[in-house]
Amino acid sequence: MIKKILPQQYKFSEKKVDVFFDVDFSLIETKVSKEKLIFITDENIYALHKEKFSGIKTIVIKPGEKFKNQQTVNSIIDQLINLHADRQTFIVGIGGGVVTDIAGFAASIYMRGIKFAFVPTSILAMVDACIGGKNGIDVGVYKNLVGVINHPEFLLYDYTFLETLPDDEWINGFAEIIKHACIKDKEMFHFLEQHSIMKFQSSLKDIATIVKRNVDIKYNVVLNDEQETGERKLLNFGHTIGHAIENTSKLSHGKAISIGMIAACHISEAINNFHKAETKKISDLLTKYELPVSFSFDKQKTWEILLHDKKKSGDNINFIVLDKIGSASVKPISLHQLHKIFNSI
Amino acid sequence: MIKKILPQQYKFSEKKVDVFFDVDFSLIETKVSKEKLIFITDENIYALHKEKFSGIKTIVIKPGEKFKNQQTVNSIIDQLINLHADRQTFIVGIGGGVVTDIAGFAASIYMRGIKFAFVPTSILAMVDACIGGKNGIDVGVYKNLVGVINHPEFLLYDYTFLETLPDDEWINGFAEIIKHACIKDKEMFHFLEQHSIMKFQSSLKDIATIVKRNVDIKYNVVLNDEQETGERKLLNFGHTIGHAIENTSKLSHGKAISIGMIAACHISEAINNFHKAETKKISDLLTKYELPVSFSFDKQKTWEILLHDKKKSGDNINFIVLDKIGSASVKPISLHQLHKIFNSI
Repeated sequence: MIKKILPQQYKFSEKKVDVFFDVDFSLIETKVSKEKLIFITDENIYALHKEKFSGIKTIVIKPGEKFKNQQTVNSIIDQLINLHADRQTFIVGIGGGVVTDIAGFAASIYMRGIKFAFVPTSILAMVDACIGGKNGIDVGVYKNLVGVINHPEFLLYDYTFLETLPDDEWINGFAEIIKHACIKDKEMFHFLEQHSIMKFQSSLKDIATIVKRNVDIKYNVVLNDEQETGERKLLNFGHTIGHAIENTSKLSHGKAISIGMIAACHISEAINNFHKAETKKISDLLTKYELPVSFSFDKQKTWEILLHDKKKSGDNINFIVLDKIGSASVKPISLHQLHKIFNSI
Repeated sequence: MIKKILPQQYKFSEKKVDVFFDVDFSLIETKVSKEKLIFITDENIYALHKEKFSGIKTIVIKPGEKFKNQQTVNSIIDQLINLHADRQTFIVGIGGGVVTDIAGFAASIYMRGIKFAFVPTSILAMVDACIGGKNGIDVGVYKNLVGVINHPEFLLYDYTFLETLPDDEWINGFAEIIKHACIKDKEMFHFLEQHSIMKFQSSLKDIATIVKRNVDIKYNVVLNDEQETGERKLLNFGHTIGHAIENTSKLSHGKAISIGMIAACHISEAINNFHKAETKKISDLLTKYELPVSFSFDKQKTWEILLHDKKKSGDNINFIVLDKIGSASVKPISLHQLHKIFNSI
């Protein structure tokens, strides 16, 4: 007997997104006809899961953030033309955040937008990158400077992809999970304190629980604030300084925003009466998940990058500060004051 | 005493577009603060109307369809970064269809979309290119293959720009006006029969009348069919074959679609009982407006381009045919049948 698999639905004003948790990859072919499908993945995922791609037209891009750029988009567009992709073509991006960001962007601009879906294969993509409709590419040192907002038709979570996920990528992903706990979910913060990456790696049940909870957190924030005028900004906790560090160092996204979160905690202490003791708790949790809490970086260069940040509005910057663990706010801070605190970190 | 200028409003489900007809260019600065403004224009318009750009940050691109490509977008993005454009920046594209298409696309992807408006300076842009929210760029020989749908905040019509419009561009623009008459407006068809390009060039009143009528036609079609599932397809009359010819020849857009319209008339005769006598009337009107009705072109190459057409859906192509002058329909036609008729033209 075939059990019909029902998705969880998240409804935006203009679109609903179906999310299939804990299912097998092969479900895709019951959703989209094979002839219309084009997969986009990267060399790593393709090599590790070759059998999953057999019989489907597949565009394979080079792995890593440094290929999340216009040249890769150009190459995807050229391949779509060669594959005779038309307006009925359905793109599925299978990979980490780089693949889903770039596949979503390419699908959104090819023929002014064709349908697409994602199969996130890393923790980071599962709990963060593939949720919320943001997609895009980097331009030089400026992350996500070019892109659009456009939601996928569906997301498919097949946790067997995590069996081949490198340890570093587990660490990377937990940075965003800890971020969600800090800004929205004190209870999850405690749950994380009682676990570890190794515990999660050995329990599909625990990973399914934590992924679903994080997807819920992120979707609810995004749904409450589609125009990104309020609550959604909270998701940038740790990211203003984090992104700038990521761009001037060789640090991974997760590690850079881990340092960004600690910097944001210090700024929260300075301008939002955030408790030093809570900063300590966050620092301990990040350390438990093998994330760095300090790092020597080029302050002058990092500051210049920060000035180009998308969140800058005239002479002020909207900064995300914590009120307490599990609750965050947006506070405008003058560039002058931020520079002073930034230099003292 | 200052008279407040009220726009005509066209309301889409997600957005309203303000259209200011027959106003002075300087109105822009009453709508957007100078510091937030960035103009995008091309070398021709910039040289001819330098005084209009003084004191405003301006990005000047090379003129012509052959620069409507990703390299030009890359260059605009780089200049926006250098000009410290942020999310409050407001872009105004001032020029013909190439400028408005590319400025709209760049604004739609910079920081995932910033606000923009258009000042169309050619007949073609005034009555067609800048209306309907489509923007984008060409990829090699494929016109408008990459882009998004996104409406400007406002359109501003200052007819003094037409004083410097070359005759060839007047001819180009009237191809789209005649197209609107063919698919939607028999009365305007008669009005055009009684006029000529020279008559329009010498009467601001007549040009204001015809432009406004065409803007109304196009906006109403687009508003009736935002998802482009029906009526909006009619606007492609003459464009399926026209675009393919444009790409394989050195013909301008207007001239190519003029030939495309005659080809579409013949196809309408073959599959839609369209009268030969009406084809003759259309052919005469196009000739009166100095547009070509025949042309020797590379049929093999043109056919190959046509196969990549965005409107292709599997083995059929949705073709726009005329019922009679002033009324059109969409008819699916098999590629096989189309090829046969195409070869006999």
